[in-house]
Amino acid sequence: MIGDPLASSDGDDHLLRKRMALPIFASDALSSVAYAPQELVMILLIGGISFLSFTPWVAAAVVVLLVVVVLSYRQLIKAYPSGGGDYEVARKNLGEIPGVVVASALLVDYILTVAVSVASGVDNIISALPVLHPWRVELAVGFVILIILVNLRGVREASRAFALPTYIFIGSVALMIVVGVVRWIAGDAPVASSAGYTVEADSLGQAAVILLVLRAFSSGCSALTGVEAISNGVPAFRRPKVRNAQVTLTVMGLTSVLLFSGLTLLALVTGVHYAENPCDLIGFDCADQPQPSLMAQIAAATFGGGSVLFFVIQAATACVLLLAANTAFNGFPLLGAALARDGYAPKALNTRGDRLVFSNGMIILGAAAILVLVVSQANLTTLIQLYIIGVFVSFSLGQLGMVRHWLRELASLRRGDAVQAGRPVADRRDILSGLVINSLGAALTAAVFLIVTVTKFTHGAWLVFLAIPILSLLMVGVSRYYRDVEQEIAFDDDTHFGASGDLAIVLVGRLQKPAAKALDYAVAARHDRTIALHVAATAESGHEVQEEWTAHGMTVPLVILESPYRTYATPIVEFIQKYREKHGATLVTVYLPQYIVGHWWESLLHNRRSRRIAAQLMLVHGVTIALVPWLLDSSELIYGRRSRPLPGQQRAGERV
Amino acid sequence: MIGDPLASSDGDDHLLRKRMALPIFASDALSSVAYAPQELVMILLIGGISFLSFTPWVAAAVVVLLVVVVLSYRQLIKAYPSGGGDYEVARKNLGEIPGVVVASALLVDYILTVAVSVASGVDNIISALPVLHPWRVELAVGFVILIILVNLRGVREASRAFALPTYIFIGSVALMIVVGVVRWIAGDAPVASSAGYTVEADSLGQAAVILLVLRAFSSGCSALTGVEAISNGVPAFRRPKVRNAQVTLTVMGLTSVLLFSGLTLLALVTGVHYAENPCDLIGFDCADQPQPSLMAQIAAATFGGGSVLFFVIQAATACVLLLAANTAFNGFPLLGAALARDGYAPKALNTRGDRLVFSNGMIILGAAAILVLVVSQANLTTLIQLYIIGVFVSFSLGQLGMVRHWLRELASLRRGDAVQAGRPVADRRDILSGLVINSLGAALTAAVFLIVTVTKFTHGAWLVFLAIPILSLLMVGVSRYYRDVEQEIAFDDDTHFGASGDLAIVLVGRLQKPAAKALDYAVAARHDRTIALHVAATAESGHEVQEEWTAHGMTVPLVILESPYRTYATPIVEFIQKYREKHGATLVTVYLPQYIVGHWWESLLHNRRSRRIAAQLMLVHGVTIALVPWLLDSSELIYGRRSRPLPGQQRAGERV
Repeated sequence: MIGDPLASSDGDDHLLRKRMALPIFASDALSSVAYAPQELVMILLIGGISFLSFTPWVAAAVVVLLVVVVLSYRQLIKAYPSGGGDYEVARKNLGEIPGVVVASALLVDYILTVAVSVASGVDNIISALPVLHPWRVELAVGFVILIILVNLRGVREASRAFALPTYIFIGSVALMIVVGVVRWIAGDAPVASSAGYTVEADSLGQAAVILLVLRAFSSGCSALTGVEAISNGVPAFRRPKVRNAQVTLTVMGLTSVLLFSGLTLLALVTGVHYAENPCDLIGFDCADQPQPSLMAQIAAATFGGGSVLFFVIQAATACVLLLAANTAFNGFPLLGAALARDGYAPKALNTRGDRLVFSNGMIILGAAAILVLVVSQANLTTLIQLYIIGVFVSFSLGQLGMVRHWLRELASLRRGDAVQAGRPVADRRDILSGLVINSLGAALTAAVFLIVTVTKFTHGAWLVFLAIPILSLLMVGVSRYYRDVEQEIAFDDDTHFGASGDLAIVLVGRLQKPAAKALDYAVAARHDRTIALHVAATAESGHEVQEEWTAHGMTVPLVILESPYRTYATPIVEFIQKYREKHGATLVTVYLPQYIVGHWWESLLHNRRSRRIAAQLMLVHGVTIALVPWLLDSSELIYGRRSRPLPGQQRAGERV
Repeated sequence: MIGDPLASSDGDDHLLRKRMALPIFASDALSSVAYAPQELVMILLIGGISFLSFTPWVAAAVVVLLVVVVLSYRQLIKAYPSGGGDYEVARKNLGEIPGVVVASALLVDYILTVAVSVASGVDNIISALPVLHPWRVELAVGFVILIILVNLRGVREASRAFALPTYIFIGSVALMIVVGVVRWIAGDAPVASSAGYTVEADSLGQAAVILLVLRAFSSGCSALTGVEAISNGVPAFRRPKVRNAQVTLTVMGLTSVLLFSGLTLLALVTGVHYAENPCDLIGFDCADQPQPSLMAQIAAATFGGGSVLFFVIQAATACVLLLAANTAFNGFPLLGAALARDGYAPKALNTRGDRLVFSNGMIILGAAAILVLVVSQANLTTLIQLYIIGVFVSFSLGQLGMVRHWLRELASLRRGDAVQAGRPVADRRDILSGLVINSLGAALTAAVFLIVTVTKFTHGAWLVFLAIPILSLLMVGVSRYYRDVEQEIAFDDDTHFGASGDLAIVLVGRLQKPAAKALDYAVAARHDRTIALHVAATAESGHEVQEEWTAHGMTVPLVILESPYRTYATPIVEFIQKYREKHGATLVTVYLPQYIVGHWWESLLHNRRSRRIAAQLMLVHGVTIALVPWLLDSSELIYGRRSRPLPGQQRAGERV
């Protein structure tokens, strides 16, 4: 199901052509046009229908911001082509804490990208098939699980499966915009189903008007989410990586601008009235039906509600949104691995699965997204409130890092360091243009970050302001922990772990083959002394083993320890400690027979006593645990081999 | 929180006095009078108010049955004082399958005892405090968790904490019966709050009438549940165990009969009308309030709804029902241990915790009861439908086993076997009286089993008919599995597990102290050959280790294996297999450094790679895994010790 394992050297063939990279890395940014115009007009509608006249100005501001951000990221890609993106830029230029904050913001955003995209995708599916309305959340969770499974198969397959829908989405939405605009110019403007609905509006003071417009702008900024994805994915591009990534980014930016502007225009032309709470729409029967998404309303107005093109647009929109969720599954594990490599996250995140994917990270991301979807009941507006904060945290800090980077480059150019060190010399004009662009980007994104914070904080964004510091602290804590352990276990030539003797203890429960194998192995390893040890919970069990021992003429001496408290490890620990007191710092090897079973349920039937004993004995000085596996017949079914006696020595007693 | 560990020999002091054993083992049987009369009149009320005139006859039948069953169990206790109860009797006299069926029925019943008792207890609490009505299920689950925690502390403490409420229950309910009867005789009969409500009833044919009366009888038989508890707990009594257990059983039987009869009488006197669905009661506002339990209605009628005695009765009833749930926590783990000892259940159930309790069994029982409560939404009537089946399965088979037992004794007495074998000779009169009593018991309980099956099957009892065979099959399967493994690993003098050589492989990730300790230990154990092995995922990591090796002048030869697929175990397995092909059946000891951490979260931060490697290497012929523990400083906090270099040998190279 997950395919054959792949060798590391196969990695190169997995690099992405531009036309494949676009659907993978750009789908996040492109798909956001499916919800950004909707959220923009929805917030304005809170002020009343007349507020919709602000739409063009707010949309224009979003487009300007989008252009600046795309230009800024073109600079970032060139300067840091290693794929660390904003995290790497912030860490290298601004220091550890900003780096960790950006990483936390990005992690939160990846989770929310999945949640928002899937929620919006489900909304668009429901707009086309209202019969699915009762299963909103179930559908959303099901899609996340599907995406996890697809991604566990590896990067290239995912790309192939998902390339077509993105192009269909771009094509069909572009067609819709062209048809809509042509009909509008021709005087046959399409009319949305909600054009007739009105809303009740309170009259607002000037400050409230400004705040509402800024809030609409903040929501519209969700069109910018995903722009950074390409900067995190540069290493996955074919050579010349930087050039290809930049071209892809530009194409993506242009497409985004066109689609966003076109959809916003059509929303105004067709008169879409989309309300935060559908029951606020006067004329809309909110009890019986879901409110169709803005995309669905425009498509229905332009092509007709039952037309093939309407369903094509809804299907493509849903697909591209799911693909956007998929973007996060590419980015999150890569960032997790970068963090693990730098010591800020558990090392397990840097363990590639057999399919060259960072499976652990994917599973964590999917589980977190499912949790968010369930808690928010897959409500798109709620999710978007949380979403934009993190995006602009990383935008701002990333751009600020870039400004610092260019200033350093400039200083280095003046001193001539790079020439001396043999590094490629950056062109003075490149540096200056980078500095200008990124300064503009930093200033604008920081301003937007402030606006977003002010307008969204009470609408749920405080949660993100809680999550980012917690994650950052965790990362710093993990980093300190690894550093301490590293120091603790650092090698030095003076420390030696020697011993003056060598004792083997074979733990025997009953005299059965697994114990016999452990005995034979201990004898074959020719320790200084080998003894068998039985811990007797009752006097009878001790006698029994002693009798079996005598009956089979075992020559290894048997020691029986009584255990009044029915604990097995404590008497053994005491025995070893006494032995070491008497014989000096002996090396003690405790042989433990270990069952290897074929089926998971068999492990329920075997006592975990030996594992518990091993865990306790490991705390004793000088003890090594030798696990002697005994493969039960059932394991033969699965591993195709079993415990067989080997040719060799006879079972012998202790050497004299 | 769970107290100090107890030695096995302390077990004797844990034996129960009669006055302590009564609350522990009899509370199940006694508490059932809190719901049995209620369920009896509830079912009759389905036929209409006139059907309540059947009540005395149905109740009388239940009392007769109760007396017979108590007498039967007196015989069982004498014949099988080891506490196996019905399970032991059925297994020894009727064979494996009946024994396993009885065990399954008992396991199901223990779970349902907890569920029914807690559900009824919560009902009685809600009857006194209706404000708690919305939290029915949460309360029930909370109580189960509380009982689990109390029981994990051990038997005696549980007994002390619970002894008082049982006596208060018996005393206060007896007082209520006396007061109610006296007022009735004095012509001032108390009137229940529901006395004025009526129900609509369809007119029923004769067959339907008989079926309804039989159904009411079946539900009334829930008064018998718990009678068997004492027979399972004989070993927990003080000496003379049999005599004390019999006396306790008799006292319990008498008390049960008196309370059951008294409550049923008062239900008729006060005119309690308790309906399966409260909305069927004409005159009762079922939307706003819970239906008070029969016990609460009688107590309110007799003492007044707001009186102190009303609350005392409700509190004592709730307490004794929770205590009944506690009975199961004494019985279930004992039965589980008996099954584990006989090989029908996982051996882990026979592992006593440090507090002399079978913790595993308790946790399983509690979890199952919580599941049942949540699924049934703590509905008492639903649960009782399931409950009685299992009780009568074990009653019938147990009594049948006793009949077989007495017949065998009789035959043995005739042949004089026991005299020859020196066994105590059973009195012929004892045998005959036992035979008569148990035959009567077997016949009656089997008849009731049929009635219960016919009347309850479609009301949910089919679930039990599904559960018992499944559990029985599982037990038989477990038994077969253990038997097969036992045969597989049986010792024989001819099998030897020798080897012709002895190779130590020390797995080295980076040259750090844990690896150094493993190296030193391997060298100290003086194997024929000792090598260090590094698996390199990338060429760089290989070079790095090689350089460190040279820099520190390590004399143990270092082998570097390349791993193109980033799997660590496969190259090692291949290396070992090649080595053994070349050098013959070598014994290979693989030394793996193992981190021991102090906090649970630290294990998240350390790669589980070494565990995965160990698991795969254990499948290779001739391999022993030597785990060399490295105690991180953090473990010192918890275990008070840490890895320290030992005095002794210098780190040395391979011996020549």
